[in-house]
Amino acid sequence: MGSSIGVVFDLDGTLVDSVYQHVLAWHEALHQEGIELSVWRIHRKIGMSGGLFAKALLRETGRELDQGTTARLQQLHVEAYLRRIKQVRPLPGAKQLLGYLTQAHIPWGIATSGRRDTAAHAVELLAIPGNVTVVTRDDVLHAKPDPDLFLEATRRLSVDATEAVIVGDSIWDMLAARRARALGVGLLSGGYGQDELETTGAYRVYEDPASLLLHLDEIGVRSSF
Amino acid sequence: MGSSIGVVFDLDGTLVDSVYQHVLAWHEALHQEGIELSVWRIHRKIGMSGGLFAKALLRETGRELDQGTTARLQQLHVEAYLRRIKQVRPLPGAKQLLGYLTQAHIPWGIATSGRRDTAAHAVELLAIPGNVTVVTRDDVLHAKPDPDLFLEATRRLSVDATEAVIVGDSIWDMLAARRARALGVGLLSGGYGQDELETTGAYRVYEDPASLLLHLDEIGVRSSF
Repeated sequence: MGSSIGVVFDLDGTLVDSVYQHVLAWHEALHQEGIELSVWRIHRKIGMSGGLFAKALLRETGRELDQGTTARLQQLHVEAYLRRIKQVRPLPGAKQLLGYLTQAHIPWGIATSGRRDTAAHAVELLAIPGNVTVVTRDDVLHAKPDPDLFLEATRRLSVDATEAVIVGDSIWDMLAARRARALGVGLLSGGYGQDELETTGAYRVYEDPASLLLHLDEIGVRSSF
Repeated sequence: MGSSIGVVFDLDGTLVDSVYQHVLAWHEALHQEGIELSVWRIHRKIGMSGGLFAKALLRETGRELDQGTTARLQQLHVEAYLRRIKQVRPLPGAKQLLGYLTQAHIPWGIATSGRRDTAAHAVELLAIPGNVTVVTRDDVLHAKPDPDLFLEATRRLSVDATEAVIVGDSIWDMLAARRARALGVGLLSGGYGQDELETTGAYRVYEDPASLLLHLDEIGVRSSF
């Protein structure tokens, strides 16, 4: 009997080192729309859906965002991020970890709150083959912390969500993993504290993909070769 | 009998919103010297002395930095930071908090691991008068987490270190505050988790200067007017 386990990865901060560039790109976009928000507050919201982000903004700044402003903000963010994209690199061990899972015949895929166009760059950076499951914001109605992105990924992988390991760097990943009834595993490489990830339900927390690769046995991933 | 309490502030991440720009400036400087280090690891080291930073780098990358490389890195960092300096703003409530302390005749000053030239910009941004105590890396032999910067500030303020409140955003501030036998108070505005600051000895943790101003009574700061 083979194992039916599968692994679903978040992208930004989990496999590619892009969180801080996304944070400062949002900071720039908000400033261009006349909205001043401290950088750390943006960091704390990164990875949640755009709709929730807009609502959180309203709570923090008292300013309600209409649909036009929201759309402009998203466009300004993409432009500001693209200006920083040359700085973005794979996280240590990311390619090796994905390569190992492929070799071990363990189904794996990507589920990101990001849009298809920015995700495409990260996928290329990681040299992920075209047949790999990559679910983006464009594929589901609700992004994280709703479980939809992860559930769509496990569906495409033909893995039961309760048998899936979900690897992410933010509390939104851990919350979405719980709501998908999957096992959440946290990485520190997005810049959040270990405690934050554990509190939101991470079963284990590792530094980065390289460190996770060294400890795969601790989360029940065994190769069938 | 009046109170002999005094308040010493860290600068980056505590009064000005500059941590993420410093982090990405270090990332750029290191890359220019052929050193690849994940951004979150740089964030975790920000605010410690350059000497310790170089040693930590050695541990993380296995590469020893000679004096020439260290000097070049510092220069490249300053240049990369200056390219981002227009994005840097005072943190919410920073000016109001300093203004309140001045009005209440509570001695206060600044102690930063940064160099005089980059600190000058932050001091200007906060409209701090020329007679205020500002201790920088250039004034002491050892930067944080050694207590020298804070001890030099309390000496200039004629406040006993054990009567001082030290406000900072990083674990290096909290560690240095303990070693100075002062009361450490943490702010989340540098992007570190509450738990990290509490674990290293923060007596209280607030979101940012605006939030600290609302809770000054909790840390024993009372106005004499």
